[in-house]
Amino acid sequence: MPRANHFADRLFSAIKAKGAPVCVGIDPVLDRLPEPIRDATPHAAVAFQGWGLRLLEAVAPHTPAVKFQSACFERYGSQGVAALEALCEFACELGLIVILDAKRGDIGISAEHYAVGLLAGPVDALTVAPYMGPDTIQPFADRAAEQGKGIFVLVRTSNPGSDALQNLPLHDGRLVGEAVADMVAELGESSVGKSNYSSVGAVVGATKPAEIANLRGRMEQQVFLVPGYGAQGGSAADVKACFDRNGRGAIITASRSVIYAQGRAKDWTNNVATAAKKLNTEIARLV
Amino acid sequence: MPRANHFADRLFSAIKAKGAPVCVGIDPVLDRLPEPIRDATPHAAVAFQGWGLRLLEAVAPHTPAVKFQSACFERYGSQGVAALEALCEFACELGLIVILDAKRGDIGISAEHYAVGLLAGPVDALTVAPYMGPDTIQPFADRAAEQGKGIFVLVRTSNPGSDALQNLPLHDGRLVGEAVADMVAELGESSVGKSNYSSVGAVVGATKPAEIANLRGRMEQQVFLVPGYGAQGGSAADVKACFDRNGRGAIITASRSVIYAQGRAKDWTNNVATAAKKLNTEIARLV
Repeated sequence: MPRANHFADRLFSAIKAKGAPVCVGIDPVLDRLPEPIRDATPHAAVAFQGWGLRLLEAVAPHTPAVKFQSACFERYGSQGVAALEALCEFACELGLIVILDAKRGDIGISAEHYAVGLLAGPVDALTVAPYMGPDTIQPFADRAAEQGKGIFVLVRTSNPGSDALQNLPLHDGRLVGEAVADMVAELGESSVGKSNYSSVGAVVGATKPAEIANLRGRMEQQVFLVPGYGAQGGSAADVKACFDRNGRGAIITASRSVIYAQGRAKDWTNNVATAAKKLNTEIARLV
Repeated sequence: MPRANHFADRLFSAIKAKGAPVCVGIDPVLDRLPEPIRDATPHAAVAFQGWGLRLLEAVAPHTPAVKFQSACFERYGSQGVAALEALCEFACELGLIVILDAKRGDIGISAEHYAVGLLAGPVDALTVAPYMGPDTIQPFADRAAEQGKGIFVLVRTSNPGSDALQNLPLHDGRLVGEAVADMVAELGESSVGKSNYSSVGAVVGATKPAEIANLRGRMEQQVFLVPGYGAQGGSAADVKACFDRNGRGAIITASRSVIYAQGRAKDWTNNVATAAKKLNTEIARLV
């Protein structure tokens, strides 16, 4: 399906329509699915699909976007990938912005293969890894921009060991993560939409507010995809610095706190919908 | 199938059996397949599988290992991934060491999903991206070591833009790529085999010999997976520095110069076998 509009513009109108810049992270783990679904299906990939379809319907009224963690599906090989494809398609039909969190990165020609494979279908944006350099990100950025889609490049993550590389001080005074931020800002310059944001965004974990504010200043045209809200420990105060003065420019992702709000009850979709609504309300209050 | 032995030990005996530390890179692109195969099959994934089975038989006598570029298969979604799974299985049956070049990387729990999904099947080693830090590599390293398998962490790549991040000078005098090399050496310390090499290896592109020699010194227990020989421009002289004094510790990958040696003729498998044999002879001479 052709997507004429710019990714950031589409994202911001979806946010406006749903009332808050939030994203529900879909990271299924077989053990944590509601019992009725887990017990009724012989294969994890089938269970994920059945669970995911109902989950998407439950959260769709309360979130502009969903983010699929590719690892959870790839765990089950090609059958898992087929379930992921079906869920992306359904999320798209529900009018959700679909972000595929696959953190791909490779040399030019391979990046091109990934970009075609992962951004051609019912996916609006892809996460991309930066270590190999700008020429390995460019094919993703180009392919995305052509189709009104986006990418989010890993800049700063909030896992315990992220400092080991991202916070190393460079000779020129910057940190490694700041150098990547500058690289991403430059890569995004040529694909800025009406909103003044680029289709090249950044993954910025919910870490210290001062650090986020610094990255916000370095990447004025990047939408921040912010994982780690809720179960991973980020608080509302922590993520406030991700937004610009107009309360724009970031999308806050929560996964476990929403998708496992289900309990194991039969009416689990109600609990999930309530958790998604709560996330929406909390973040709407910030911006 | 259980793999009792240490990955590096298994790799070195496979190298001994085939006479040279080489690896054939399998990066299929539909346009470049032999016409008879391309024309006979309705879907790229089916064509890849038919082509790949014959290619593997042709190269198996001349190479200890093959490396599949996951991007080429993922381009075609779950069907492509299914073809990749079938080819990995067949390569394993042929007694080849199977390296999956997927460059995955994510936070702990997602890394665990990837490690289970990609290292549990007929795959001996996986390439891994380092940007998120050591705690995101550890689950891959642990899972690999448990099963007598290995990982190769991206340290230095040879694409044109690789310097932008990997060659930035740090405040402590190292380059970013050197800091990653030191991180990888440390991660690998606890999983060293009889050969004195670790199951945690490194991807080191065929760049300048002086730079390779420096990284060899920093990572004495890492097997180097060296892409870029042949079509990508690396020469025999360039890659010599990857080996230790005993001519061990590296595996040289060539892709296009072997797999597209086929021409479009009917007897393409003979041409591919000849190219694989030539690669074997060239590298055997070095070590």
